[in-house]
Amino acid sequence: MQYYAGLDLGGTFVKGGIVDEKGNIIAKDKIPTGKDRPYAEIARDMAALVKSLAKKAGIAESELKAVGVGSPGTIDSKNGVIVYSNNIRWENVPLASEIERELSLPVSVTNDANAAALGESFAGAAKKYPSSIFVTLGTGVGGGIVIDGKLFEGNRSAGAEIGHMVIHTGGALCTCGREGCFEAYASATALIRQTQEAMRAHPESGLWKICPDLEKVDGKTAFDGMRAGDERAKEVVAAYIAYLAEGLANLANIFRPDAIVLGGGVCAEGDTLLLPLKEEMNKRLYGGTGYAPVELIVAKLGNDAGLVGAARFAQQRA
Amino acid sequence: MQYYAGLDLGGTFVKGGIVDEKGNIIAKDKIPTGKDRPYAEIARDMAALVKSLAKKAGIAESELKAVGVGSPGTIDSKNGVIVYSNNIRWENVPLASEIERELSLPVSVTNDANAAALGESFAGAAKKYPSSIFVTLGTGVGGGIVIDGKLFEGNRSAGAEIGHMVIHTGGALCTCGREGCFEAYASATALIRQTQEAMRAHPESGLWKICPDLEKVDGKTAFDGMRAGDERAKEVVAAYIAYLAEGLANLANIFRPDAIVLGGGVCAEGDTLLLPLKEEMNKRLYGGTGYAPVELIVAKLGNDAGLVGAARFAQQRA
Repeated sequence: MQYYAGLDLGGTFVKGGIVDEKGNIIAKDKIPTGKDRPYAEIARDMAALVKSLAKKAGIAESELKAVGVGSPGTIDSKNGVIVYSNNIRWENVPLASEIERELSLPVSVTNDANAAALGESFAGAAKKYPSSIFVTLGTGVGGGIVIDGKLFEGNRSAGAEIGHMVIHTGGALCTCGREGCFEAYASATALIRQTQEAMRAHPESGLWKICPDLEKVDGKTAFDGMRAGDERAKEVVAAYIAYLAEGLANLANIFRPDAIVLGGGVCAEGDTLLLPLKEEMNKRLYGGTGYAPVELIVAKLGNDAGLVGAARFAQQRA
Repeated sequence: MQYYAGLDLGGTFVKGGIVDEKGNIIAKDKIPTGKDRPYAEIARDMAALVKSLAKKAGIAESELKAVGVGSPGTIDSKNGVIVYSNNIRWENVPLASEIERELSLPVSVTNDANAAALGESFAGAAKKYPSSIFVTLGTGVGGGIVIDGKLFEGNRSAGAEIGHMVIHTGGALCTCGREGCFEAYASATALIRQTQEAMRAHPESGLWKICPDLEKVDGKTAFDGMRAGDERAKEVVAAYIAYLAEGLANLANIFRPDAIVLGGGVCAEGDTLLLPLKEEMNKRLYGGTGYAPVELIVAKLGNDAGLVGAARFAQQRA
């Protein structure tokens, strides 16, 4: 058996794992990122994490073949460079070579959402599908594209920015500066904004009973209001699902993947979200669902998707 | 040198060519499709066209390695089957095996817009770029996606429907049934509709001098009006370019190709279209143009793109 280390670099923690060639996690740990330190220190800690994980997993050094890192930001994965990360405030950091200096192993780096997409494809929800698109609904809309089991990253890994596909020209302002991006309608942030807007416009709405404080509205508020029978809440949820379906159907028509994998907190709604979303997406599939259907499924690996995918990325490049 | 036959199946003509392994056309000809005849007859004529082209090119039968066909409609390219073509009214026609029956050569089939994309990539405007997206602005918006020199077709070749990406939720009705598709805003048909709408709303507009008959408005009318200094015409052109830029920027953010190749009659406008379009597209590129710019160029091969691409498709599968 061959093993790979997968690291998921975040603003708060670096999560790491030893993953076998089939995608099983053998050992797992995390360390604080300490993101305000010089990058060389962080890289050294990441290398040390790999060594301690290998020990924890009880594998010989010779069995560990490569290290993969999922990092936020724009990554030049060919050269293992963090071109720009807003999250960790890095610019042109040669992370792969920094870590390689500490380990006698090849190190690969990709974007964290890409890593999660590859993880779900290799060992998670999309395991049985050759091609899948991972869409995570969080602060923004992130994602990754897997074609025939491999990440598609675009030129200089700058593609797969699926959150920044405009679905509503002239619509809501996105953090990227464009108006009407998928992210501005389908992220958890957008759902919260849509819920707050409905509450402001309708002081009589039962949504106020669910959450009396506008500032405390979250991605669950509208769903809870809907379950309590509130009409405005139903409208918010229906509109959110329609926007989400619009973007997913676009991706389906462009890529015609075998499956779309959804991640993010809102997926905890389960079938309440998924069933109407499937229906709305399928209505929008070019040529219908008969010839080349697209499965809509929920992510399985949770927080482990990134490290499993990072390990797989390293495995594919080793 | 090795040679391939490329056929471009249309509703009126089948255009064919013998193309060498570098993408040069050695001989070219066309025959009427006679599209209302049984498909076996059409396939037989296509095989005969290949034989006569080989003679015309003066190449030995042994030098002709494979045949590629670009066909309208949904194509199962793995099996060489026309799943559905509205244009030729075919359903589940096993075109590759029908032609193979007449020739002792392997036959491959792909969608005609895909073939054109591959042709422009292999031997046309995008020759120097590994990855490009071909977008043709005609009755609809067709296109094809080339990644590292190869067509990306999606599951069962049902992807790459870039015209059916919604850019304006709830907007203009598309022929596909969705509202707000890229095609409904950026096709030549859409430009004509937008011009007619402006004329109806503004009886005083100078557009009426360019074209006194609403029914005769074409893709050039608004551009001609703009050149004549008409304000309404300027607005129509600016809005059309903004919509076109919105869709192209979406594709750029999703695929981050090296280049986008534009085809269709409206490209005859040259820099009048291209310069403002580049500016509008670049404004919308995620992360800007510094790190991974996307070139915007005009198709070069014209009507030959399809047959050159079909030949290349056959070459890659041979």
